[in-house]
Amino acid sequence: MMILGMDTSAVAASAALWENGRIIGEHFVNVKLTHSQTILPMVQNLFTACGKDITQVDEFAVSTGPGSFTGLRIGISAVKGMAFGTKKRCIPVSTLEALAYNLIGQECVAVAAMDARCQQVYTAAFQVSRESVQRLSEDRALSVQALREQLDEISSGLPLILVGDGAELCYNSWEGSGVVLAPEHLRFQRASAVCMAALPRRGLCVEPALLAPEYLRLPQAQRELLQKQNKA
Amino acid sequence: MMILGMDTSAVAASAALWENGRIIGEHFVNVKLTHSQTILPMVQNLFTACGKDITQVDEFAVSTGPGSFTGLRIGISAVKGMAFGTKKRCIPVSTLEALAYNLIGQECVAVAAMDARCQQVYTAAFQVSRESVQRLSEDRALSVQALREQLDEISSGLPLILVGDGAELCYNSWEGSGVVLAPEHLRFQRASAVCMAALPRRGLCVEPALLAPEYLRLPQAQRELLQKQNKA
Repeated sequence: MMILGMDTSAVAASAALWENGRIIGEHFVNVKLTHSQTILPMVQNLFTACGKDITQVDEFAVSTGPGSFTGLRIGISAVKGMAFGTKKRCIPVSTLEALAYNLIGQECVAVAAMDARCQQVYTAAFQVSRESVQRLSEDRALSVQALREQLDEISSGLPLILVGDGAELCYNSWEGSGVVLAPEHLRFQRASAVCMAALPRRGLCVEPALLAPEYLRLPQAQRELLQKQNKA
Repeated sequence: MMILGMDTSAVAASAALWENGRIIGEHFVNVKLTHSQTILPMVQNLFTACGKDITQVDEFAVSTGPGSFTGLRIGISAVKGMAFGTKKRCIPVSTLEALAYNLIGQECVAVAAMDARCQQVYTAAFQVSRESVQRLSEDRALSVQALREQLDEISSGLPLILVGDGAELCYNSWEGSGVVLAPEHLRFQRASAVCMAALPRRGLCVEPALLAPEYLRLPQAQRELLQKQNKA
């Protein structure tokens, strides 16, 4: 059984191959480059480096949001195309849930936080153990301040670890919160974690046509339009 | 400041770019392919994916052993060539010490174990904390059984976590040891960890000509020759 996982939800981009219980390859970059230009060559190089072929993939997993509007569409479109072309199905994964899988192996509460700009974060909390990840709250868009005020509800005696590209923003805003920052190499969206998060969701496989982004908020242009209409 | 890290010490192979406090890219594979054919294309693809160039690298870090005799020579030769060609220096890193860096962020003792065949492992222990790794024992070749017998000396109240491509071998042989297996995505040699392990060793930079493998044991052919000579 082979899964190709992909994440292009923010600045970092990555692709990973999972086969029979093992990550057999992962290509990860965390630089401001255009995902639409980089992601497919990255997937091609990953297959070559692993000596594998796209026809060997059984299921395609992708983080479907929350995240950058353009970034999510690039990843989802690429996966739709590959799955449609090879007549395979797709596993949509919450970007925040995948982030929690970066911390698997530690007994903690993962506070996943992605930078949603304007001092807001996309966030959800997960109880992480040696072998599993359990969701504690739904994916939401919150201000950094509002998330801090909700930490007490999340806390359960376990260490709280901030993970995601909004983790540092929260950490720096919350002086004395006692919350810990995930180490840099586990802080960002990773396709290997998308593969791991996809495994218990294999029953939720969909046809490529049904794969859709989960934005949580309207795009900025639509928010501004609504604001104007409400004022009028 | 940019560091290129590389690991080809065993079955897995990887290259990573570290720049100013961040892993900006990592290409990792864990399949039985010939490193001499795969590692340089992997490095080239990593540079392309990150929009960087070899001339921007300030220092080259590589795991110099213990590990596979051929694997180590491939990685070291590749790094020697790149550093010599760009007139830069190299940071040799113990493969076992780099493995401990996979676990950075957790408060634990990392028992790094690489499969040395014949029920032996290359091993060393490290105290790992949120931000640092401290060596507790020298790199050694030990039988799986002998390592188990030394666990009591290593233990310090912190959880013992087995990491490395020999971790599963030890874990499966040590029923009821209480030792934990590192999660699969952090278990194997990673070039990102080589970069992290290189950072506090920058003062130990060497000219490429001085980079040399640390085998810990003689190659099998030499061991057999010595055995024959002793019998004669």
